[in-house]
Amino acid sequence: MALTIAAPSQEEVRRRNLGALLRYVHIHGATSRAELTDRLGLNRSTIGALTADLTTADLVSEEIPRKTGRAGRPSLVVRPRSSRVHAYALSIEVDRLRAARVGLGGKILDSRAADRPPGLPILETVGTLAGFVRDMRRAAPADSRCVGGGVAVTGMVRGADGVVRISSPVGGVAGTVGEALGSTLGHDRALVVANSADVGALVEHTRGAAAGYDNVIYLHGDVGVGSGIIAGGRRVTGHGGYGGEAGHMVVNPHGRACGCGSRGCWETEIGEQALLERAGRAGATGRDAVLAVLDAALDGDRAAEAAIRHVADWLGFGVVNLVNIFNPNMVVFGGTLRELYLAGAAQVHSRLSTMALPGCRDHIRLRTPVLGDDVPLMGAAELAFERLLEDPLVAGTG
Amino acid sequence: MALTIAAPSQEEVRRRNLGALLRYVHIHGATSRAELTDRLGLNRSTIGALTADLTTADLVSEEIPRKTGRAGRPSLVVRPRSSRVHAYALSIEVDRLRAARVGLGGKILDSRAADRPPGLPILETVGTLAGFVRDMRRAAPADSRCVGGGVAVTGMVRGADGVVRISSPVGGVAGTVGEALGSTLGHDRALVVANSADVGALVEHTRGAAAGYDNVIYLHGDVGVGSGIIAGGRRVTGHGGYGGEAGHMVVNPHGRACGCGSRGCWETEIGEQALLERAGRAGATGRDAVLAVLDAALDGDRAAEAAIRHVADWLGFGVVNLVNIFNPNMVVFGGTLRELYLAGAAQVHSRLSTMALPGCRDHIRLRTPVLGDDVPLMGAAELAFERLLEDPLVAGTG
Repeated sequence: MALTIAAPSQEEVRRRNLGALLRYVHIHGATSRAELTDRLGLNRSTIGALTADLTTADLVSEEIPRKTGRAGRPSLVVRPRSSRVHAYALSIEVDRLRAARVGLGGKILDSRAADRPPGLPILETVGTLAGFVRDMRRAAPADSRCVGGGVAVTGMVRGADGVVRISSPVGGVAGTVGEALGSTLGHDRALVVANSADVGALVEHTRGAAAGYDNVIYLHGDVGVGSGIIAGGRRVTGHGGYGGEAGHMVVNPHGRACGCGSRGCWETEIGEQALLERAGRAGATGRDAVLAVLDAALDGDRAAEAAIRHVADWLGFGVVNLVNIFNPNMVVFGGTLRELYLAGAAQVHSRLSTMALPGCRDHIRLRTPVLGDDVPLMGAAELAFERLLEDPLVAGTG
Repeated sequence: MALTIAAPSQEEVRRRNLGALLRYVHIHGATSRAELTDRLGLNRSTIGALTADLTTADLVSEEIPRKTGRAGRPSLVVRPRSSRVHAYALSIEVDRLRAARVGLGGKILDSRAADRPPGLPILETVGTLAGFVRDMRRAAPADSRCVGGGVAVTGMVRGADGVVRISSPVGGVAGTVGEALGSTLGHDRALVVANSADVGALVEHTRGAAAGYDNVIYLHGDVGVGSGIIAGGRRVTGHGGYGGEAGHMVVNPHGRACGCGSRGCWETEIGEQALLERAGRAGATGRDAVLAVLDAALDGDRAAEAAIRHVADWLGFGVVNLVNIFNPNMVVFGGTLRELYLAGAAQVHSRLSTMALPGCRDHIRLRTPVLGDDVPLMGAAELAFERLLEDPLVAGTG
């Protein structure tokens, strides 16, 4: 009996396996053929054939390991060609614009950054970012190849078309950033655009603190609060790509008006402004101002200490809600929430132990990002590499 | 090049296609071979072969349609053998115990129900429920076959082993309900157990109001509030199977103490007691008491009207949080929340339009369950049929 349609063709199986092998070395770095055979559950001759294809495509190289402790012929080591294959990663942050050329394997090969003038609309950042890319392109080796580009944007981002719908702290303009950048750079398709918190969840789940964890909440703090959620190993994107806007979960019905038009949203209690005002620094803004409060607390400043306790208590409050709703096994605190969590971990844990359901608080781990400040850039690169890993031999210039 | 491991065997492809065909007629009822060919994307001879296998296994029957408007040989109609193949569905509710024999295709063939004595622990409901099943088994046709059983429990349920961890309104006992029922009934494996709200999400997504919607929140109200969440077409279960406990999202930090140990949980604002107390009926409990408040409001009872407005406002408040977090395209109100929503839809819509993020409130539909009061039973049956549909020819007596 023929089941031609549902059975994947040899070609599909090959593509999937090429992607699996390339993904493995992209995440784990140089790996011996023997280990690949073991980890991917494929036989030796298949691994050999896949590696040969990827070598021909200049995506990996093979070499004899320098030294092995064992007798006999050593297993060849497969290494991603980080210096030959790269993606451009762009990050549009509240007060900074960053760009990097990231090699296959997740290595930052080159980078550029500039201040973002306060209030500069997102679409008007395209010129600066495109300039960064052109500059890095000139500096890249002649024999290197670009496989695409990704953009992380602080604010709310529509998944499918890259239209930014709400991003009050970032610029407030609806614009097709990905398309604008793609066409400015002369790429044959739009760059992939996603929310900073979503790419944070992606990259920390791929190669960071949450590697191996299938139910993850990644929180990103700056002016506002974003969240990226992994449920059952997959990103929760929602119907229109807006899933994960936990910063606009209302935690305090009698709280302050929020930029989104509602009142008492989580980000009104744990965003930058909440901390700075409580600490008696109402005029200040930005990451450095937040870090200054944390430093002051370490130096014994009572107002700073109290502000951190108060805001970290609200941080724990919202985390508990998400924990009860999602039953994650890991929560990662990124952006300025990293420092807030480290300074106020006691408040967060106290809320968890008194408010979270026992079944939901068992086994949960609270962590900070392994990739630190590079999370948005590395996540943006990961967006671009996703396309390559899905079909390694076809991906052109992104 | 041989890719033996990743390529599914002919046998796996066949099993998957048998499952797909059986699932189609299970959900959509009798379907012509021509339509199956079209809907499943398989060719005619494959559909013929699959149907023959399922007919031999006594899972479907084929017949010539009575009348067709077209010339030529009519396409045979494939029909699930609802009267020959069934699952047992059990529902442990706050004040009721229900059981049904549900035929393949989702038809209730027989049912039993009894009051549940107040406070009777879950494990002590096993005797009554097992008695129902034995009774229905005796009444079933001799040539009929059971393919398994499922149990819906109001309260929090661990997915993997069926251990009920928290279920204060239901009985508060940790017990392996599924195992106890399975062994009492002499089944060769435990019955599948899940939370009433989770099975509600499952069955309304499979064959109810949310069919065709991939991002769904199903809310179930009784003493407490449960939720079942579908994100990207899949149930959100969380790390330990506790995902979706939105009833314990804190919406009112200064609210009342909740049975879970926290304060101001959503269910303290929209559960039965909140409505009954506000309506001046503090002593009453149960579904009938809730319905009496709604009837009184229709008759012009001011206290009942005000109570509904107040509680429906909190219903909308929590819905907005879930909408901002998940960006669903449908919310379904089940259990007593069905009536509350129908009476207080204006409050819910008002909260949505003033508090929800524009990107998240666009395209959202609010609905009540198509399956009404049968949601938990039909959902429990669906849990059992899931096993059959995964491997139609192997499933034994569940």
